[in-house]
Amino acid sequence: MSRARAAKHREENEIEFSRIVAFSDGVFAIAITLLVLNLGVPDHIRNDDLAQVLLRQWQDVFAYALSFAVIGRFWLVHHRFFGEVTAFDGRLIALNLFYLAWIVLIPFSSQVLGDHGSDAAAVVLYSINLSGVVLSGVLMFGDAQRSGLARTSPEEFRANRDRALRIAAVFLASIPVALLVNPRLAPWFWLALFAGPAAGRLYRSRRDVA
Amino acid sequence: MSRARAAKHREENEIEFSRIVAFSDGVFAIAITLLVLNLGVPDHIRNDDLAQVLLRQWQDVFAYALSFAVIGRFWLVHHRFFGEVTAFDGRLIALNLFYLAWIVLIPFSSQVLGDHGSDAAAVVLYSINLSGVVLSGVLMFGDAQRSGLARTSPEEFRANRDRALRIAAVFLASIPVALLVNPRLAPWFWLALFAGPAAGRLYRSRRDVA
Amino acid sequence: MSRARAAKHREENEIEFSRIVAFSDGVFAIAITLLVLNLGVPDHIRNDDLAQVLLRQWQDVFAYALSFAVIGRFWLVHHRFFGEVTAFDGRLIALNLFYLAWIVLIPFSSQVLGDHGSDAAAVVLYSINLSGVVLSGVLMFGDAQRSGLARTSPEEFRANRDRALRIAAVFLASIPVALLVNPRLAPWFWLALFAGPAAGRLYRSRRDVA
Amino acid sequence: MSRARAAKHREENEIEFSRIVAFSDGVFAIAITLLVLNLGVPDHIRNDDLAQVLLRQWQDVFAYALSFAVIGRFWLVHHRFFGEVTAFDGRLIALNLFYLAWIVLIPFSSQVLGDHGSDAAAVVLYSINLSGVVLSGVLMFGDAQRSGLARTSPEEFRANRDRALRIAAVFLASIPVALLVNPRLAPWFWLALFAGPAAGRLYRSRRDVA
Repeated sequence: MSRARAAKHREENEIEFSRIVAFSDGVFAIAITLLVLNLGVPDHIRNDDLAQVLLRQWQDVFAYALSFAVIGRFWLVHHRFFGEVTAFDGRLIALNLFYLAWIVLIPFSSQVLGDHGSDAAAVVLYSINLSGVVLSGVLMFGDAQRSGLARTSPEEFRANRDRALRIAAVFLASIPVALLVNPRLAPWFWLALFAGPAAGRLYRSRRDVA
Repeated sequence: MSRARAAKHREENEIEFSRIVAFSDGVFAIAITLLVLNLGVPDHIRNDDLAQVLLRQWQDVFAYALSFAVIGRFWLVHHRFFGEVTAFDGRLIALNLFYLAWIVLIPFSSQVLGDHGSDAAAVVLYSINLSGVVLSGVLMFGDAQRSGLARTSPEEFRANRDRALRIAAVFLASIPVALLVNPRLAPWFWLALFAGPAAGRLYRSRRDVA
Repeated sequence: MSRARAAKHREENEIEFSRIVAFSDGVFAIAITLLVLNLGVPDHIRNDDLAQVLLRQWQDVFAYALSFAVIGRFWLVHHRFFGEVTAFDGRLIALNLFYLAWIVLIPFSSQVLGDHGSDAAAVVLYSINLSGVVLSGVLMFGDAQRSGLARTSPEEFRANRDRALRIAAVFLASIPVALLVNPRLAPWFWLALFAGPAAGRLYRSRRDVA
Repeated sequence: MSRARAAKHREENEIEFSRIVAFSDGVFAIAITLLVLNLGVPDHIRNDDLAQVLLRQWQDVFAYALSFAVIGRFWLVHHRFFGEVTAFDGRLIALNLFYLAWIVLIPFSSQVLGDHGSDAAAVVLYSINLSGVVLSGVLMFGDAQRSGLARTSPEEFRANRDRALRIAAVFLASIPVALLVNPRLAPWFWLALFAGPAAGRLYRSRRDVA
C-alpha cells in the first residue's frame, strides 16, 4: 500500500491538520520569544555601571537579532511548506517533531553565542544547531514530497532543496573557519546569508511599487 | 507589476493569513506573560524579612503594570491594523517580524527599568525600546497602506500615523529629561500617556451607559 | 448612544473576537505552564542529598498543585463567560487585559508561597492576588452584563457574581487569619475552597453514570 | 440522567471545544519549549573551558532529547484521543487539566534527570512523573469512553488502554531497578520504549514506499 493512500487527507481532517500547524506555530512563537531571556542585567551591579553593562551587551543583542531573524525565517519556510501539504501521516508528524526539536535548541545556542562569541566552540555549536534545522527540514520536506503528501512541483521542490543544502553547507563550512581562522568572522557571515536576500527582496519590491 | 497585485488576498488564503496573526498573537501573549519572571524573591532571605523585601519591590511591580499596559495596548493596535489588512506578501510578513522583535525586547527593558529605575540608562533603554516598537509599527502600517494591502481610509491612516509619531516623540523626548533632569520623572510621564486616554474612554463610555 | 449599539457584534467580527479569546487562552496556558519554573533543584548539591532536597520541596509542589488548580479553574470561568458574550468593545478588551494582568501575577505569588509559606506575608500576597483576579473578573463580567454585551440571564448572572464575591471574601478573610493566627492554616483552607466543589461534582456525575 | 446526555455535543459547541483543544496544545507547546531552559552555560566560565563545559552537558542534552520525544509522543496520543471525542462536560475538562498538570511537570523532572542522572532519586522522580501522565491519561480516556463521550470502538479502546498500562508498568518497574541495580540503566531503557516503535514505524513505512 502506498503511503499517500494510507495518509489522512487534509480537507477531511482539517481540525487535526490545523492542530499540527498550530502546535508548530506555538513552538516557534515560544522559542522566538524565549530569546529575550538571554538578555539580562545582574541585580547587584552598582547603578553608575548600568550604562557600561548595557553597552557591553552588544554581543548578546547581536545574537538576539540574528537568532530572531533566523527563527523568523525558518518559521516562514515551515509556513510555506505546510501551505503545500495536502495529506499527513504519523511519519510526517514525527519528522515535524524532530525538526522542532532543533528549532527549540536555538535559544540555547544563541545564549552561548551571545556570552562566548569569541570562542570557537560557541560558533561550532551554533553552526551545528542551524545545520540540524536545515537538514531535518530537508529530510521532512523530501520525505513528504516523495510520498506524495505535498503538491509542490518537482522543479520547485528541487530548487528549494538545493537552496537549503547550500545554506547548510555554508553553516558547516563556517566550522573550520571558526576553528582555524577566527570565530568572530562566522556570525557576520551568517548574518549576510539571512539579511542579504531579505534586503534584496525589500529593494526589488520597493522598486516595483515606485 | 504593482505590489498589491502580486500579494496574496486574504479571503483566498485565510489559513495562511490566520497563521500569521496567530503567530503574532502567540508572541504578544508570551511576551506579556514573561513579564512575571521579572518579579521574584530570593530563596535565601530570612522569613521575617519577606514583608520588607516585597514592599521594596514596588518599583518592579510598577514596571510590571506599566509594561503589561504597554504590551496590551500595542497588541490592540496590532489587532486593529490586521483587521484592516486585505492582502499580504513576504514584505509585510518580514516587517511584522521586525515589529515583533521590538515587542519581545520589552520584558528585558522592563526588567532593567524595574531593577535600576533610578538610573538614566534604564530610562533611555526603555524609551528606545518603545520608540522602536512605535516606529517599526509606523513603517509596517505605512508600507501596507501605500501598497494597497489595507482598506484603511487615507484620513484614518494619517490620523493613526500622526498619533503614533506623537507617542514616539514623547518617548524620545523623555531621553534628555532622564539624562539632564531626573530619571524618576520619565516613567510617570509614560504612564500618563497610556493611562490618560484609557481613563478618558472608560469615563466617556460609562457616561454613555448611564 | 448606548454602549451595546456601539459595540461590535460577535457574529460579524468572528475573527477579531476569536483573536481576543485566543490571546486570553494563550496567556492562561503560558501562566499555568510557567508554574513549573518555581520547582527546581540547585545544580551544586551533592548527589547523595538529592532525595532530601526533593522531599523538602513538598511545599513547592503543594503551591504548584494549588496554583495549577486555581488558574485552571479561572480559565474555566473565563471560558464560560466568553461563551455568553455576544458583542465586545474597547472597554471589554481593556477590562479583560486588566483581568489577565492579575492572572499573570499568580506564578510569582505562587513562588513566594512555595518558598516562604510559613510567613504571613506570603499568604497575604497570595490572597491579594487571587482576590484581585476574582474582583477584576466581577468588574469585567458585571460591566459586560450591564452594557448588554452578554446573554446571561439576570438570575444566573447574580448567582455567579454572588459566588465570586463569596470566594473573594474567603480570600480576604484569610489575611487576618494568617496575620493573627497561623499562616500555615490559610493554604489548606483555600484548597478546600477549590477542591470541595470539584470533588462534589465528580462524585455527583459518577453517581449519575452508575 | 446519563452523563452523555448532559454533556455538550462537539458539533454544537465547536468554538468551546476547540478552545479546550487549543489550550491543551498551548500547554504542550510551552512545556516542550521550556525544556531548552534546562540547557545553559554559566556566564562566568573562562572561554577556553567552553568546549569542555559543552561536552560535559551530554547528559542534559540526552534528557532534552528524551523529554522532547516523550512530550511529543504524549501530545500525539492526546491529539488522537481528542480526535475521537464527540462530546464534553465539566468532568472531562477537569480530568484534562489534571492530565496537563502532570505534563507540565516534565520540564522539572527532566532538569533534575539531566543534572543528577546518576542519582536514583532523579530516576524515581522521572518515573513517577511519566507514570502520572500515563495513568491520568488512562483515567481521562477511560472515563470519557465509559460515559459515551468518545466514538472509539471498545476493541480499540482496550488495545490503547492496555498499551498505556504496559508503558506505566515499565516506568514503575524502572524504580526498583534504579534503587537496587543502577540508576544509569533506566534512561536508556525508557528511550528504547519510545524510540523502538518509532524506528519500527519509520522502517516499515519506508519499505512501503519503496
